[in-house]
Amino acid sequence: MNVVLLEPAEVGPAGEVTLADARAVHLLQVLHVDRGSTVRVGLIDGPPGTAAVTALAGSSVTLRCVFEAATPPRPPVDLLLALPRPKVMRRLWAQLAAIGVGRIILTNAERVERNYFDTHVLAPECYRPLLVEGLQQARDTRLPAVSIHRQFKVLVEDHLDALAGGALRVAADPGAPSRVDAVVSGRAGADRVLVAVGPEGGWNGFERALLEAHGFELAALGARTLRVDTACIALLATVHAALAHRA
Amino acid sequence: MNVVLLEPAEVGPAGEVTLADARAVHLLQVLHVDRGSTVRVGLIDGPPGTAAVTALAGSSVTLRCVFEAATPPRPPVDLLLALPRPKVMRRLWAQLAAIGVGRIILTNAERVERNYFDTHVLAPECYRPLLVEGLQQARDTRLPAVSIHRQFKVLVEDHLDALAGGALRVAADPGAPSRVDAVVSGRAGADRVLVAVGPEGGWNGFERALLEAHGFELAALGARTLRVDTACIALLATVHAALAHRA
Repeated sequence: MNVVLLEPAEVGPAGEVTLADARAVHLLQVLHVDRGSTVRVGLIDGPPGTAAVTALAGSSVTLRCVFEAATPPRPPVDLLLALPRPKVMRRLWAQLAAIGVGRIILTNAERVERNYFDTHVLAPECYRPLLVEGLQQARDTRLPAVSIHRQFKVLVEDHLDALAGGALRVAADPGAPSRVDAVVSGRAGADRVLVAVGPEGGWNGFERALLEAHGFELAALGARTLRVDTACIALLATVHAALAHRA
Repeated sequence: MNVVLLEPAEVGPAGEVTLADARAVHLLQVLHVDRGSTVRVGLIDGPPGTAAVTALAGSSVTLRCVFEAATPPRPPVDLLLALPRPKVMRRLWAQLAAIGVGRIILTNAERVERNYFDTHVLAPECYRPLLVEGLQQARDTRLPAVSIHRQFKVLVEDHLDALAGGALRVAADPGAPSRVDAVVSGRAGADRVLVAVGPEGGWNGFERALLEAHGFELAALGARTLRVDTACIALLATVHAALAHRA
């Protein structure tokens, strides 16, 4: 935990907050804070800041926070992901938030099993704490926006422009002749990138054609076929590096 | 499984091999092979090839393999990694082999707990099948070389030149001013890259200085602090993309 994130409702008018949960345990047992210690804090979807420890009582810690004026922008990369197995999705939430995504768009596809949508891993009560865990690791405050779509065609045709309108669109495809980093480096105009990752086994022909018809450029990460979770991290890292390279 | 890997000793002089383990189950239940089907095969640390299914009997499958003449080169990136927690290391083996590393050099560091070295996750009987699983995912045959070093200073001073002599050396460091991809793209000479990833909490000052004294350039992946497993995948993906970009 490299920043302690707070819900806006937890913080009083003078910046005071008393923690008695896992965050307090971390402050006491890992950071070994004392009265007067200073720690990094942040408001979820708000600004970062610093806090002074003003009181310790048993296993609770009271902080007085001072936040910066500006909320940082969301990471400039969004992810369109064919819903993976629940076990894989559970592991991905924190990693996606840590590596940095503005928006996570989960979708159905032919090779996604229908019952994957019935898992509690898709309930905000399950995934929100995992996203916050990833943000606390990466020292970010901006919670990725999450939406879940059971109809791929309806998503791509009717909703994607509202969700990720001006973004450069790239679909990962191991067989494509262009490379993801070259596609991103080559387009100096787009401020945001939307990357699509298909299911294990890939998009089917219809899905691939629909993506291409809606502005996605197919591009490869390399010749190796990766598991979906490895592919997501590798792809997001590559796109972030390509955007930084271009800057 | 995108290729069926075989131990050289399993294959007879005419290329025949009978499988009755998880590989046979995969061929029968996922690929639904029949007599006459063709499947992709590979010799571990040898050439790839194709095989015809010549017989099915119960849960066993007999193949006749024809291998290509050339063994592919090992991936041009090696990893020096401060040994993470056993649970994390167990998850990493297959992912590292899938994304592509030539050599995995595991080391001690001040912030590595000593008992991490006592785990069976470091026994070849445990990690070799996981590496093979990753290769079968990525359709590669070259098994990463693995070495384990309990003394960081002895490793860096006395063994690293023999393990990764001519490689460009880059150590991931969130605070460094240069970016990993820029460092790799900028050095047209080196055919191989050795990337170093420290423990959770980072290298200490002595370790960082020793790495720099032995030719490592400190470079950042970005401003975000990642968990060690996420960092390894993100870093290897970034280096592979930078090498491909340079090519």
